Amino acid sequence: MTERGMLIVLSGPSGVGKGTVRQAMMNSGYRDFKYSVSMTTRKMRPGEVDGVDYYFRTKDQFEQEIANGGMLEYAQYVDNYYGTPLKYVNQTLDSGRDVLLEIEVKGAMQVRAKCPDAVFIFLTPPDIPELKHRLVGRGTDDETTIMKRVRKAADELKMMSNYDYAVVNDKVPLAVERIEEIIKSEHLRVARVMDRYMAMLADTGLAD
Amino acid sequence: MTERGMLIVLSGPSGVGKGTVRQAMMNSGYRDFKYSVSMTTRKMRPGEVDGVDYYFRTKDQFEQEIANGGMLEYAQYVDNYYGTPLKYVNQTLDSGRDVLLEIEVKGAMQVRAKCPDAVFIFLTPPDIPELKHRLVGRGTDDETTIMKRVRKAADELKMMSNYDYAVVNDKVPLAVERIEEIIKSEHLRVARVMDRYMAMLADTGLAD
Repeated sequence: MTERGMLIVLSGPSGVGKGTVRQAMMNSGYRDFKYSVSMTTRKMRPGEVDGVDYYFRTKDQFEQEIANGGMLEYAQYVDNYYGTPLKYVNQTLDSGRDVLLEIEVKGAMQVRAKCPDAVFIFLTPPDIPELKHRLVGRGTDDETTIMKRVRKAADELKMMSNYDYAVVNDKVPLAVERIEEIIKSEHLRVARVMDRYMAMLADTGLAD
Repeated sequence: MTERGMLIVLSGPSGVGKGTVRQAMMNSGYRDFKYSVSMTTRKMRPGEVDGVDYYFRTKDQFEQEIANGGMLEYAQYVDNYYGTPLKYVNQTLDSGRDVLLEIEVKGAMQVRAKCPDAVFIFLTPPDIPELKHRLVGRGTDDETTIMKRVRKAADELKMMSNYDYAVVNDKVPLAVERIEEIIKSEHLRVARVMDRYMAMLADTGLAD
């Protein structure tokens, strides 16, 4: 019997660097997971590739997918949809591989409700002024949008209580290292390995 | 305000190698914890030092300590007492340092009842035949004692359900690495860091 993979949810305030950390994870030595590419209706940014960074879809296409029950989670955020197609996640978990989701806070709460045994990691900015600095530095948003996001980030930070772990994104390689340690440790949680040990005892005739 | 240290409880069946793993942890690069020396009434083994490996005490002395309420946990095991003096543990946690206990399974359950936010790590043998092999190899016990312990180990393995993590002691350096990852990850658990983040938000005037 193949043990089912573990669902890892990486989330956090907009602008905290979720995408950068996720990409660094995919380029690191630790590759024992599959990344689930999200679907979005937002515009492609320079350097992004359809099917790699996101599945870029129209609003109509996205809403059709929702209607078909094909989304594990989705949320509207700054006038765009973001979401996770269900099929790839289930197939990969069933094959015994871990799946990494990098999703928005609202979507993470939907996964929490549906998959209580997933691992929920909340990426945090070193501090709120630093978050604002990053959004300005990205140069893709005007000042009103930035202030809206900073306020939202403060609100989202309070949502941390719904997560299992808080990882500060002070330096990307450090954040990646912490996340990898969390994943490895979570695989040792008794709730996840108990069945395997009981099967071993049964094999040696000592289960009763 | 100093954040309180974390209590780490390393336990597992007799003969699994708790002492070896604990000593390897104390000699490893990761030293961000204090080891709480246990008290026992068992005879000193060659190479052991009083106050380093254990506080070696008489049965009368140990029972006096119990009567004084000075033990965090204790258990009788193969006709000897083993236990943890309370005072050092509390002082060290209050100073902000983590404390590592390496204790028997019965004692660990007492700590669980008293300190629910401690981290409970269960060290497991790669398999039960391997455990028997180790006890025989140690050469300190006769066959009846060994069989008693193997049976006990199988029973104790079922007690894993009362722990947070199961770490297999296949190779000592690997077991140490896993335990260190668990400790670091546990320090990132939201339940442990939430207060610190809320204090940061309060400082930026964004808490409400």
